[in-house]
Amino acid sequence: MGCLDEGHFNGELENELSIGLGEVGFDEERVAAIGDAVKLLLQGLGEDVNREGLRKTPLRVAKALLEGTRGYRQKVNEIVGDALFPEAGLDNNRIGHAGGAGGLVVVRDLDHFSYCESCLLPFQIKCHVGYVPSGKRVLGLSKLSRVTDVFAKRLQEPQRLADEVCLGLQQGIKPAGVAVILQCKHLHFPDIESIFLESNHQRWVNVIVSSGSGVFGNKNADVWTDFFGLLKFRDIDIENVRPRGSSDQCWCPSVSSLSAKVSSKIVPLNPAMVTAVSSILKSLGEDPMRKELAATPSQYLKWLLNFQSIDMDVKLNGTLSGGLNSLNSNLEVNSNNKQICSELNLPFWSQCEHHLLPFHGVVHIGYFLSEGFTCIGKSLLQSIVHFYGFKLQLQEQLTRQIAETISPLLGGNVIVVVEASHTCMISRGIEKIGSSTSTIAVLGHFSTDRAARAAFLQSIPTPTYCEGQ
Amino acid sequence: MGCLDEGHFNGELENELSIGLGEVGFDEERVAAIGDAVKLLLQGLGEDVNREGLRKTPLRVAKALLEGTRGYRQKVNEIVGDALFPEAGLDNNRIGHAGGAGGLVVVRDLDHFSYCESCLLPFQIKCHVGYVPSGKRVLGLSKLSRVTDVFAKRLQEPQRLADEVCLGLQQGIKPAGVAVILQCKHLHFPDIESIFLESNHQRWVNVIVSSGSGVFGNKNADVWTDFFGLLKFRDIDIENVRPRGSSDQCWCPSVSSLSAKVSSKIVPLNPAMVTAVSSILKSLGEDPMRKELAATPSQYLKWLLNFQSIDMDVKLNGTLSGGLNSLNSNLEVNSNNKQICSELNLPFWSQCEHHLLPFHGVVHIGYFLSEGFTCIGKSLLQSIVHFYGFKLQLQEQLTRQIAETISPLLGGNVIVVVEASHTCMISRGIEKIGSSTSTIAVLGHFSTDRAARAAFLQSIPTPTYCEGQ
Repeated sequence: MGCLDEGHFNGELENELSIGLGEVGFDEERVAAIGDAVKLLLQGLGEDVNREGLRKTPLRVAKALLEGTRGYRQKVNEIVGDALFPEAGLDNNRIGHAGGAGGLVVVRDLDHFSYCESCLLPFQIKCHVGYVPSGKRVLGLSKLSRVTDVFAKRLQEPQRLADEVCLGLQQGIKPAGVAVILQCKHLHFPDIESIFLESNHQRWVNVIVSSGSGVFGNKNADVWTDFFGLLKFRDIDIENVRPRGSSDQCWCPSVSSLSAKVSSKIVPLNPAMVTAVSSILKSLGEDPMRKELAATPSQYLKWLLNFQSIDMDVKLNGTLSGGLNSLNSNLEVNSNNKQICSELNLPFWSQCEHHLLPFHGVVHIGYFLSEGFTCIGKSLLQSIVHFYGFKLQLQEQLTRQIAETISPLLGGNVIVVVEASHTCMISRGIEKIGSSTSTIAVLGHFSTDRAARAAFLQSIPTPTYCEGQ
Repeated sequence: MGCLDEGHFNGELENELSIGLGEVGFDEERVAAIGDAVKLLLQGLGEDVNREGLRKTPLRVAKALLEGTRGYRQKVNEIVGDALFPEAGLDNNRIGHAGGAGGLVVVRDLDHFSYCESCLLPFQIKCHVGYVPSGKRVLGLSKLSRVTDVFAKRLQEPQRLADEVCLGLQQGIKPAGVAVILQCKHLHFPDIESIFLESNHQRWVNVIVSSGSGVFGNKNADVWTDFFGLLKFRDIDIENVRPRGSSDQCWCPSVSSLSAKVSSKIVPLNPAMVTAVSSILKSLGEDPMRKELAATPSQYLKWLLNFQSIDMDVKLNGTLSGGLNSLNSNLEVNSNNKQICSELNLPFWSQCEHHLLPFHGVVHIGYFLSEGFTCIGKSLLQSIVHFYGFKLQLQEQLTRQIAETISPLLGGNVIVVVEASHTCMISRGIEKIGSSTSTIAVLGHFSTDRAARAAFLQSIPTPTYCEGQ
């Protein structure tokens, strides 16, 4: 709260507001520059940039990044424009506040997303904005969302985003005060090395931040009590808002996990790939030398390198023989080959090869155990899921590959269901928050036995993969 | 299901698909034509089209309508375009279906909205789309949503929308089959005459429809069982999908309520206003003579005329004196003037004067009863709320007007909180489903007593106004 306390901030924002590069649209030069950098990153992952699935990925990534950071090329004043409307406020002979003269207006539960400046992954935002009108003018309600979007569509950190939205509205509509509360949620993507060790990986990092100006400038002001009073039933109160001072500690999980490991293991990065990420930042309209962006290329690359193209067969063969051996002590022979064995809710993490954005969720595996075969241990199935997850993928292909790999180990009758959230469905053009994708592969008996499929689908519990969404 | 059963449909859709009027964008001529028609409608409501709050409403409505029906000017093939990607499918020596050769893909919970062809109000859609890939090709997931949008952004009826999305995908990507399930929700706006009589007005009309082609062409096909199996936890099953034959009975509540009343009361409509609505339909790219649109102008106008500008003071004075008199039998004198009296969750219905779109929700009223004053009965407060709701409004103004009206009746110490869902926040540019707006007016003691405001806000129960959302 009290973002106007910091004098330097004002100038910074003014400056940023005027960066605007004319009309929003795709500047061919930027698209080409980002596309070239993405091509280099793909090559760095060991990929063939000319294979059909990847051929247009650089172009797709470039357009998505420019669209997702279009806020650099937008101005608050152009958005607010003529959307201030007359509203009389109370008759002079009455005591109090209402309408266009002091009547608090709060718009709640606006869904947005932004890009984390530390790792370049999108993060989700539930935004609540309030303002106190003055001068017998009220703002068109949708503009509160549009102004938020101007600042969200940049590389951001939650507190800075809240401060910028607050200041942008304060300067743009000059009300008696503005308050902003953001509930932010950052995907916590595990490293391929650590995922085999952690059994309870935390999928999300959550933080709540606030900012206030004018009558909201003092965090103890009465009007904050009114604002919080209107946000009840949302697990928000003054106690769980992150104090401003603590923002020195970066919320991004890639920063904390990187620093934790950097002492034990230095990851050598390809300098050409580092330069490529810096050039992307520049093409988006950012200054790669800005303090908060200095480590971004290495953090982004460390994450991206989880998806290096490797010879899966070689890696898997080692695991499979090892995994099967280790099962000998733990065999469960199932004599009734009509019973469905299953492993449900195996988490997975992957990377969409069309957009270079994560998708993640759970895999459910079912099988009829044929004579002469033994159940596979959960940990081996989980390893197979991770091996196929940590590469540039399509969900359809991931599903098929898992099914093809486990099928010969189990006698040929398997069903694999993958349920996933795709970041590209949230952060790109269509912005469909809350949607999820299911894919199915059925082999052997399962391809002809509707009742068996139905029984298996029925056994899948309420989805948990999007928990915290 | 089985939309391809109907031979004539195919030709119709082809025709519609090719209506496309070039690039999506605002055609100046259409904007001007719709704007003129809207001006005429506003005048028909008795409004001054030159007052500041309304001056740009015709332009705003025209742009919103054209944007909301942009599907008429889009083509499926251009959207699907190059978004079919290679995915190998199972090895030849395996039995079953997976990936690009038969592996079912389902995208669930896509939020969309469309315009009801019977009354021109937007309705909400939760869309679930599935398809079975063939030819070793899979579609980029976001395209399932984009294609749905092409048909949703038109004047629609749920079953037809499902059929068109299904056929559009079938023709556009030529898979083994397509299935579409839509959960549709239509606001049931009451008439100003009936609202005073109905105590339990049903706010929403819900319907679930489905459509299938190819392997989904037969509603008893096994693959439908798989699809429904993946939609569990959503209150969807084969039993609550509306049977295709029943679509003769229109789901739009304005049709059923109109026909119910038409025998008892014929509403005379201004012919110039009817012509204006027809000309809007034409400007959107529709044929006003299409059978399903024949009654649309009168249904739309019947709804719009709920918001005629009338002299509120005259109307209210009658009610207030009547209302206060009728209270005499039911007085509750409260001697402790520190106790807060309240009436919570009074429903309201209104019309946004910036977009000519409904907003609706609940009003909460609190007051300290001063000496010499009596509690106001709930029905009188509810009447005051309805009187100010049924006009072209701003939520901020509605809040203030209610506060100003009840304040002198109660001794001057009142708080009014309005919580609302705005259709314009859902159906226009920003498409923020799930957001809500709160406004507050505080008079007398409430403007200075933070603790009293907090106590009142604390007493407001979990929101129910968006039930069914």
